[in-house]
Amino acid sequence: MEKIEIAHGSGGSLTKELIENIFLKYLDFEELKSLQDSAYIRINSSKIAMTTDSYVVKPYKFPGGNTGKLSVCGTVNDLTVSGAVPKFLSLGLIVEEGLPIKELEEIIKTIAETAKSAGVSVVTGDTKVVEQGKCDRIYINTAGIGEIKRTFSSEKVKPGDLIIVTGTVGDHGIAISLAREEFDMEIPVESDCAPLNSLLVPLFDIEGVKWMRDPTRGGVATVAVELSEMADCGITLFEDKIPVKESVNFVCDMLGYDPLYLANEGKALIVVDKKDAEKVLKKLKEHPLGKESAIIGEITDRFKGVRLKTKIGGERILDLLEDDPLPRIC
Amino acid sequence: MEKIEIAHGSGGSLTKELIENIFLKYLDFEELKSLQDSAYIRINSSKIAMTTDSYVVKPYKFPGGNTGKLSVCGTVNDLTVSGAVPKFLSLGLIVEEGLPIKELEEIIKTIAETAKSAGVSVVTGDTKVVEQGKCDRIYINTAGIGEIKRTFSSEKVKPGDLIIVTGTVGDHGIAISLAREEFDMEIPVESDCAPLNSLLVPLFDIEGVKWMRDPTRGGVATVAVELSEMADCGITLFEDKIPVKESVNFVCDMLGYDPLYLANEGKALIVVDKKDAEKVLKKLKEHPLGKESAIIGEITDRFKGVRLKTKIGGERILDLLEDDPLPRIC
Repeated sequence: MEKIEIAHGSGGSLTKELIENIFLKYLDFEELKSLQDSAYIRINSSKIAMTTDSYVVKPYKFPGGNTGKLSVCGTVNDLTVSGAVPKFLSLGLIVEEGLPIKELEEIIKTIAETAKSAGVSVVTGDTKVVEQGKCDRIYINTAGIGEIKRTFSSEKVKPGDLIIVTGTVGDHGIAISLAREEFDMEIPVESDCAPLNSLLVPLFDIEGVKWMRDPTRGGVATVAVELSEMADCGITLFEDKIPVKESVNFVCDMLGYDPLYLANEGKALIVVDKKDAEKVLKKLKEHPLGKESAIIGEITDRFKGVRLKTKIGGERILDLLEDDPLPRIC
Repeated sequence: MEKIEIAHGSGGSLTKELIENIFLKYLDFEELKSLQDSAYIRINSSKIAMTTDSYVVKPYKFPGGNTGKLSVCGTVNDLTVSGAVPKFLSLGLIVEEGLPIKELEEIIKTIAETAKSAGVSVVTGDTKVVEQGKCDRIYINTAGIGEIKRTFSSEKVKPGDLIIVTGTVGDHGIAISLAREEFDMEIPVESDCAPLNSLLVPLFDIEGVKWMRDPTRGGVATVAVELSEMADCGITLFEDKIPVKESVNFVCDMLGYDPLYLANEGKALIVVDKKDAEKVLKKLKEHPLGKESAIIGEITDRFKGVRLKTKIGGERILDLLEDDPLPRIC
C-alpha cells in the first residue's frame, strides 16, 4: 500500500500495520512500545500515566454529545482504564475558518462542564485556525495525565477469568451513524459518551480486577482480539449475554452493522478473577453508568483468538476490523 | 464578529479576544488562567509543567524542517521557557486520506530524530485519518510534560532589566513564506526550527534570569507587548541591535513584512537583571544555537507599552498583531 487510506485510522488491522511498520520503527521509545492506552512515566518519585487522542468525529454534534464532550471523556477514560486517576488535560483546537463563534462557544462550554463533572482540570491549550476546506468544522486533541494507583497488565490475565462489560454496546456508533442523516430513520439513539472514572476508580481496590480497556474504535470485538494476542489466550464471548439496546440492534440489522465492532465512548471491558466477579458486578450496578453491566465472556486455554457463541448455538471467530464501516466515529 | 476568521489563530489581538471572551469564560481552571506557555501542575510532590500545541504549517515541508520537527521543537521550547526540563511528549496525528505513506514515514523519522536530539521521549500517540479535503496533508498535535526546575515570572521583571534575543529573528516566517512558492524568488532562507533546551536549561542556575519566552506566532514584537502588559512596564527595543539575516531583511523589504512580527521557532527572548546580562550573553554565545545572541532592549518605567528606537533615530510604537500577514506559520 502506498497511500494512507481511511481504514488506517479505524483502529483495526491497517492501524496496527501502520503502528508496527512505521511508528515503532522510528519511535523506539521504551514507554511507547507497550502500546497501552496510556504510557507509564515517572517524574521524580511520582508515577504518572499520559495519553492523547485527537477527535475528528463527523458530525461534530450528535445526540448525547459533541466533539468537545468526546474529547474529555475519551482521554479521561484512557487514563482510567490504565489504572490512573485522571487529573489534568491539555486542549488543542484546530478550527475551520467560518465556524460560527456561537458553536465554538457551545463546544468550549461542554468541555468545561464535562471536565468539571469528571473532576479534571483543563490546564493548557492552543488554537489554530485553517482555511475553509482544510478541516471539518473543528478537530480537538486532548492529552491527559493522571496519577497511577494500580498497575493493570494483560500478563495477569489467566484461563478462568471472566470478562465484564459495563453496559450496552454500540450506542455511540449508531448515534453517530444516524446523526449523519444519510439514513431516513427517526430512531432515538444517544451516544453513551461519559467519563468513566467515577465508575471504575473504586474498582482499583479490588485485587481480582486484572485489566480494563474502553472499547472505542473497533468496538468490543477488536479489544477482545487485542487482549487475546497480548495475553496469549483464548476468549469466549457469549452473544446472549452481551447487552445491546433494542433500537441499536434494530439499526444494526437494517444497515448490516455488527454491534460488537461499533464504537463505545462510555463503556469498559474488565477482566476479573472469577472469585471477585460478583463483587465487581454488584459495585458496577450500583453506579448510574454501570446499571446494565454483565459478565459476557471468559478467558480460556482451549484455543487462541476470540470465539463468539452465537444466540442460535453456533460459533463465530472474531478478528480485527479489516475495514471501517463507519470512519470518523470519534 | 460572528464567525471564526483566520486571524483568530494568529496569536495576535483576535486570538487574545477569543481566549478572554470564550475560553476563560468557561474554562475557569486555576492553572489555565495564568496563560503561560506551560501550566504549572503538581502530582504528589512533583512539580510539573504541561503544554500543548497543534501544528498546521503550510507547506508541511520547508527548508530547515517539516511539521514533525516543528511539533517537537515547539513543545520542547514551550516547556523550556517555562523553567522546566522537557521529558515526555504525546503525539496526535490527523492525516489526510491519500498522503503517501513514504511522506508520513519521513515525518515520523524526523520526529524521532528531533526528540532524541532534544533528550525527550515520545511516550503515547494517536492517529486519525480524514477524507481528502478535510485536512491539509497532516496536522500534528504534541503535548509535553517536563520537570520544573525554576519559576520564571513576569512579576520579577523590573525597570533596568535587559532583554536578550538568542539569535536572528524572522527566519522561520520567511522560510515558510518562500516555501509557499507564491513568490518567484530563489533566496535560501532556512527555518531556525530547533529544540532550545540545551541552550536555555543551563541558564536556569543564573539568578538574574527572570523570564523567557519563545517568540513564535506574532514574533518578537507580540511577545514584547504581552510582557509589557503582564509586567505593567515599558519596553524599549533598539532596532539596530536586533539581529536579522541580510536575506531575511531583503525579503521583508520586498514583501512588506516586518521581521519583528514574523515567527521564530528556535529563538528565545530572555529578561535578565543588568548585573547578570554579560554572563548570560557569554554563556549563550558559547552554544551553537546562541552564537548571535544580543541585548536588544530594556525595561523602563518611563512609559507603558513597547517602543522601537529605529535605526534612523525615530521611535515607533509596537502593538499586538492585528491581522496575520502569514497564517499557518506553525
